Amino acid sequence: MSKQLQFYGDSISGNCYKLKHVCSELGIEYVWHEVDILAGDTQAEAFRKLNPNGKVPLMVLPDGRPLPESNAILSYLADGSDLAGADRYERANVMHWLFFEQYSHEPFIATSRFIVKYLGSPVERQSDLEAKRPGAYKALGIMEQQLAGHDFFANNRFSIADIALYAYTHVSYEGGIELDDYPRVREWLSRIEARTAYVAMRPPSRGHE
Amino acid sequence: MSKQLQFYGDSISGNCYKLKHVCSELGIEYVWHEVDILAGDTQAEAFRKLNPNGKVPLMVLPDGRPLPESNAILSYLADGSDLAGADRYERANVMHWLFFEQYSHEPFIATSRFIVKYLGSPVERQSDLEAKRPGAYKALGIMEQQLAGHDFFANNRFSIADIALYAYTHVSYEGGIELDDYPRVREWLSRIEARTAYVAMRPPSRGHE
Repeated sequence: MSKQLQFYGDSISGNCYKLKHVCSELGIEYVWHEVDILAGDTQAEAFRKLNPNGKVPLMVLPDGRPLPESNAILSYLADGSDLAGADRYERANVMHWLFFEQYSHEPFIATSRFIVKYLGSPVERQSDLEAKRPGAYKALGIMEQQLAGHDFFANNRFSIADIALYAYTHVSYEGGIELDDYPRVREWLSRIEARTAYVAMRPPSRGHE
Repeated sequence: MSKQLQFYGDSISGNCYKLKHVCSELGIEYVWHEVDILAGDTQAEAFRKLNPNGKVPLMVLPDGRPLPESNAILSYLADGSDLAGADRYERANVMHWLFFEQYSHEPFIATSRFIVKYLGSPVERQSDLEAKRPGAYKALGIMEQQLAGHDFFANNRFSIADIALYAYTHVSYEGGIELDDYPRVREWLSRIEARTAYVAMRPPSRGHE
């Protein structure tokens, strides 16, 4: 068994990119196993044995224990570090933004991007895409409001909450969601990209891109 | 300012019930402020000042700091207790099921219940309701699989993951989602209800029930 953390992820996925981002910030080494969502790899039997929910990312510890859910993996990797919050309230406040991201942000902004960029915006998904726009802009509005007087989302300090929210916000335009009316969100994106340990999302070149 | 935790919640909401349930298990006292979702209380300006996302539940600490998101509040209340996991992996594995609940379970099972029980299953929501059924049964299938050889969801020990998943699973029939084909899920519900500190969900009687 390997002594390193094993990540299974698709590099087109913002949820998977979160792991690369936090590991760059924390100096954590890992082995990356590329899994192709569009080719159906996550629905294959071998992968579903690792994660019955058939989703990436998945982390496997050196002793073989698996952990799915991008934001749970962020919590594991950041546990005890500055990126997880300094006390009980701060930790829970980081969680607040992680749950906001998965419930009120990702289902609108990430899914729009998936439909436009990876499915090629097919006619039969147009009403679905349109239905996601109000939720996407509502999430951005809440983010804009929170950033009034704050540099970062939770406890006014860079944390895994920023890493989680950055993942799909910075590529929201790929799903037709524009940030023109959200200047504080755009400044916050730049603030994250200016960090020494920042690592960009670079999806591999594939036939479907 | 009060010395007690203040909860703002609507007793018809499973997400709000989670807080009563964990406080009963941990012996935590609180003051409950009933907020009527259907009357629009969460969209009122006074409430949105406390939570810009306009959602319940919301917790306010004795010093006035607010915390939204049901599962973040569970994390706060259970922090350092047996219900949160004993080590780094266990804590993250509890988080795994909390994120599963919010992303892959609640949007299908809780929302079906809301449409049927509280909106009265209006004609214009039938296709929406129908669209949620596969996701609801997929979530139950994953739960049934996880409970093979396990009494509880995370780390085979009762935790806030069980409290989160119990909230809407035990009333799934109210949204037309039946548990007949999920015997292990039904046994797990009974296991939770047999605990000494169990407290039932008892929505208040209102005109719309």
